[in-house]
Amino acid sequence: MHHLTEGLVERGYDVTLFATGDSITNAKLESVCPHGFYEDESLDAGVCQWLHISNAFEKAREFDILHSHYDFYPLTFSRLTSTPLLTTIHGFSSEKILPVYRKYRDNYYVSISNSDRAEGLNYVATVYNGIAVDSFDFNDAPDDYLLFFGRISYDKGTHRAIEVAKETDMTLKIAGLVADEHRAYFEKYVKPEIDGEQIQYLGMVNEETRNELFKQAYCSLHLISFAEPFGLTLVESLACGTPVIASNKGSVPEILIDGETGFIVQSSRDAINNVPRVHGIRRQNCRRRAEFFNVDRMVDGYVKVYETILEREAEQSAM
Amino acid sequence: MHHLTEGLVERGYDVTLFATGDSITNAKLESVCPHGFYEDESLDAGVCQWLHISNAFEKAREFDILHSHYDFYPLTFSRLTSTPLLTTIHGFSSEKILPVYRKYRDNYYVSISNSDRAEGLNYVATVYNGIAVDSFDFNDAPDDYLLFFGRISYDKGTHRAIEVAKETDMTLKIAGLVADEHRAYFEKYVKPEIDGEQIQYLGMVNEETRNELFKQAYCSLHLISFAEPFGLTLVESLACGTPVIASNKGSVPEILIDGETGFIVQSSRDAINNVPRVHGIRRQNCRRRAEFFNVDRMVDGYVKVYETILEREAEQSAM
Repeated sequence: MHHLTEGLVERGYDVTLFATGDSITNAKLESVCPHGFYEDESLDAGVCQWLHISNAFEKAREFDILHSHYDFYPLTFSRLTSTPLLTTIHGFSSEKILPVYRKYRDNYYVSISNSDRAEGLNYVATVYNGIAVDSFDFNDAPDDYLLFFGRISYDKGTHRAIEVAKETDMTLKIAGLVADEHRAYFEKYVKPEIDGEQIQYLGMVNEETRNELFKQAYCSLHLISFAEPFGLTLVESLACGTPVIASNKGSVPEILIDGETGFIVQSSRDAINNVPRVHGIRRQNCRRRAEFFNVDRMVDGYVKVYETILEREAEQSAM
Repeated sequence: MHHLTEGLVERGYDVTLFATGDSITNAKLESVCPHGFYEDESLDAGVCQWLHISNAFEKAREFDILHSHYDFYPLTFSRLTSTPLLTTIHGFSSEKILPVYRKYRDNYYVSISNSDRAEGLNYVATVYNGIAVDSFDFNDAPDDYLLFFGRISYDKGTHRAIEVAKETDMTLKIAGLVADEHRAYFEKYVKPEIDGEQIQYLGMVNEETRNELFKQAYCSLHLISFAEPFGLTLVESLACGTPVIASNKGSVPEILIDGETGFIVQSSRDAINNVPRVHGIRRQNCRRRAEFFNVDRMVDGYVKVYETILEREAEQSAM
């Protein structure tokens, strides 16, 4: 949420960021751990987590609003302070965590897409995650390959992208991390298909290469099989002018405009059939759509949420 | 802490136990999880833990004192309520958790032995863990074997007990759990010595067998190599009249009276030399010493701690 804190500071808000001590920010920084506990064996994950959260709540009176991006944990402190707590839910990791949200349903919530909402919670709004669109170059004269960008996994549909490339006789470039838990999937469904020609695997790439890959792609393939809370890579592709063919799952219909910035499909067959039609998409439309998800709009969205919360709090204390 | 809650209820105190729903207690029971999360895959450990603790603090105003036996976690909520929090520290699991205690050093603490104290914490008292001495039968005419009772591990010194048995030509009965992390130790240092005659391994035993094992033992061997916070099995042995030969570590010198209820030793050699001298110990002395650690005394100890806390709180609010 670097973009959010920076955006708020730029607009003159008094922002304190509770994060590790090595965080780079123009906000005031409050930290109890010098750096992430993954990077330092002398730190205990639980200790960092509990001290981090309690520190914020012990100082809650200094703030008009506490804004949490830290899953359900801070909710459990919320009734012990009168400062309102806003929680942005960046996806539900498991059904098992829902009891906490249910108990604290009257807190304030933001969803990151309309599709990613649990029933009965007090949502103030959906605020889409934003990207710095300016940091992506628009390109109207791309190359002719297909692109899979993102974590390699069954859910993300790397194997479906391969199927589409083979059926359409096009080149596919794959870039992204193979996490340990998806290693077996990669070995079985992806690696045997890599020939360095038609199917290319580039591993993890840096930001520059990522932008170049998006810019030059004929189209991106996002054939997920799960309800993704928010598909940030779709927006990144669109920012470069590159249309996306994506499954009709999760946040996809809120990001893509079917037939205008890509195609929303029901199956691999459907995706294959739509590949030739990408020629008919105006790449300027894609860029324009990406601007809808610019960081400024995200910051605007949150400012509006904060104002709503302060109004509701004022109403309640007036009652 | 079943004995403590029951003891307090018997004395007429108004006690609410925050625990799993299947807890058996005469106190009022408050629970957020029906049973332990280890027993139920539908429960998330983190969810149970955070909801459990927040539930107690959300109701803190109903109580004069909150008494935590739950490690450092509740400390992080302590500044968000005016109800005093007492924490009994049942040992420090790691150096890494000390930063939490240091931050909340002004809370109230009880140590379970004088030996198990961290510097700089606001300790009100040491309250030794108690056992129901009456549930152990005193026996003045024991058999002639040595006993190792407890978890099988290097730290607990099972191999040292074997060494002592072999050097003194006595039978050793070993009873206790082999945890996964100590399986390799068991396989290497204990299992090859088991012959079913001189060195016997009985596995985990039920309460009845445990009491019988203690009752009939010539003496117990507790040749630990770590600073054990409180050696409850020493007290159980003493309750049956069975002397203990134990290392000069952790809480041992606070439990055993050297030469009166057993011997406190510096080495295996020292232990071996003292085995014949156990004949000279009066088993009645052992039983009498165990009574010092009866549950009643533990309850007395905590009542006194609670009174001290309430006095100090009253002084502070009068200032």
